Amino acid sequence: MNELRRAKRTILFPNRPVVSGWASVVGKKEGEGPLGKAFDEVEQDDRFGKQTWEQAETRFQQTALSLALHRAALEETALDAVFSGDLLNQCAASSFALRGTGIPVLGLYGACSTMAEALLLGGCAVNAGYAARCAAVTSSHFAAAERQYRFPLAYGGQRTPTAQWTVTGSGAVILNRCGSGPVLTGATVGTVQDKGITDANNMGAAMAWAAYDTIRTHLAEMACGPEFYDRIVTGDLGQLGQALVRELFARDGLELGSRYEDCGVLIFDPQKQDVHCGGSGAGCSATVLAARFLPELAAGRWKRLLFCGTGALLSPTTVQQKQSIPAICHAVVIEA
Amino acid sequence: MNELRRAKRTILFPNRPVVSGWASVVGKKEGEGPLGKAFDEVEQDDRFGKQTWEQAETRFQQTALSLALHRAALEETALDAVFSGDLLNQCAASSFALRGTGIPVLGLYGACSTMAEALLLGGCAVNAGYAARCAAVTSSHFAAAERQYRFPLAYGGQRTPTAQWTVTGSGAVILNRCGSGPVLTGATVGTVQDKGITDANNMGAAMAWAAYDTIRTHLAEMACGPEFYDRIVTGDLGQLGQALVRELFARDGLELGSRYEDCGVLIFDPQKQDVHCGGSGAGCSATVLAARFLPELAAGRWKRLLFCGTGALLSPTTVQQKQSIPAICHAVVIEA
Repeated sequence: MNELRRAKRTILFPNRPVVSGWASVVGKKEGEGPLGKAFDEVEQDDRFGKQTWEQAETRFQQTALSLALHRAALEETALDAVFSGDLLNQCAASSFALRGTGIPVLGLYGACSTMAEALLLGGCAVNAGYAARCAAVTSSHFAAAERQYRFPLAYGGQRTPTAQWTVTGSGAVILNRCGSGPVLTGATVGTVQDKGITDANNMGAAMAWAAYDTIRTHLAEMACGPEFYDRIVTGDLGQLGQALVRELFARDGLELGSRYEDCGVLIFDPQKQDVHCGGSGAGCSATVLAARFLPELAAGRWKRLLFCGTGALLSPTTVQQKQSIPAICHAVVIEA
Repeated sequence: MNELRRAKRTILFPNRPVVSGWASVVGKKEGEGPLGKAFDEVEQDDRFGKQTWEQAETRFQQTALSLALHRAALEETALDAVFSGDLLNQCAASSFALRGTGIPVLGLYGACSTMAEALLLGGCAVNAGYAARCAAVTSSHFAAAERQYRFPLAYGGQRTPTAQWTVTGSGAVILNRCGSGPVLTGATVGTVQDKGITDANNMGAAMAWAAYDTIRTHLAEMACGPEFYDRIVTGDLGQLGQALVRELFARDGLELGSRYEDCGVLIFDPQKQDVHCGGSGAGCSATVLAARFLPELAAGRWKRLLFCGTGALLSPTTVQQKQSIPAICHAVVIEA
């Protein structure tokens, strides 16, 4: 058993679970962004043919999972488990997405880090043989998130300069015991960091510490430098959080340079799309992973990716109660 | 790898992760119930010395984890992971409980099924060697849940006959690669069932189908009958849901009899404590497991327990949007 275990927070997957399918489905605004053409499907209607935004988010998940299964040439019944989560209270988008399907479901909550957490646990399940094939699915919806976390859209609240824009969309990834495609080779589990930031409109700053902690721990436990990876990506710190991570590493004498990117910065054009610090939401890193990163690995243009999902673990209640913002970051290694 | 896998939804733990510690901390009302003397700690103040019920719930988790570690003779630093969750929006009680501790955290959402989900994933982690020791921790708080799911307490809303009473408390279980104590030998992952029940005050009925589906699948995949177990326990269907499960099995010609119990029925005295159908909440099955079941297994009075966590995956938003109630049930086998 010891073989599987390398160090305290980092685990290795010697059986190399294969990423055999992936898909991204996003809303109109995301489709107009820099990655617009890379998404598998862009939905123009923010209700996705449903009566409510919440039901639309469920449909985003169902569509992403269905497209990812199609890419993997698998039927829904081939899945031994789905690891899923979202930002809605009680993770309702995920709970409703799989009802009646007969697929075993393990519900997660990790805020915007959920895709990384789902890949980590899915990687554990496939590597150990608990599942032959499983899926990781997450989502978010701008309108559903705004009214839940902030204000009703009709109120027209002013956004602060450090605010981020919740991505409307869902990403799905299929992990497979065998087959061809990029492979998961390891992961580092996050810890809950809290540096006392209380501004709920500055989640990038709260999450930057968690990202720094997990990436630093990962590099130390793997005994490698940032150059071991073609890309280290966080999702989703936004512009301010990304700058903070760069600065924290620079203090340690490590320049992350252009190999470091953030999903929240990549998904929107900050000049043209009025999103302030960038994108966020459990659908942000999931859709950017599927649209931008996995194709690079599949094509062999990149050899190694460190995918670091970051989540701010606040709730509107904890904010009203003047609590500071805990954050977490889980990292997953994906190789070509 | 195939060895670990027995059947579609049931996985086995041949390395038998040891339950080396457990603890339950509950509120005043739970302390006055039939299991009162069995809980490790009964807290008289519903704010547990904190300013808010939500912060109190966080403290319930911290206290339960600390007592469970003490029983296992372990320090906090010995834990490679904590699998935790609760009912608060964004699982805030759990996220806040471990901030700053440096313990790797994997956040779950499974409503009242979360303790079973945490044991299932924790069992996977220890069995496969990803973690040498981990913890499963869940909680709920009556007052925090009422205002979030139903009405402010001061409103004094009338409860319906099928309503359940959210348990105030937290349960924690330590899983260990080695040592002595009861052992986890397998688990069956739940699927999301939805039979169209829309009454949010009748969650027992919504969850009964999920319990029936998982227990039936478990018995079929293990090729055994209910008599294989000293106890089959659901948590927490309440009196109505428990009766429905009995009836569903009776239709299949299987009488569950007295070996079948429900945590929601055990924790309160329905005559004296005015709780209508019984207890509920992510803290209910967790505290009953720690106070009532694990001691029986540890003392050798029971040989085998099938612990079936049941969760209603609704949210106030989905109820307002007239959606029916999805439910899930994860089962874990614990042996003496």
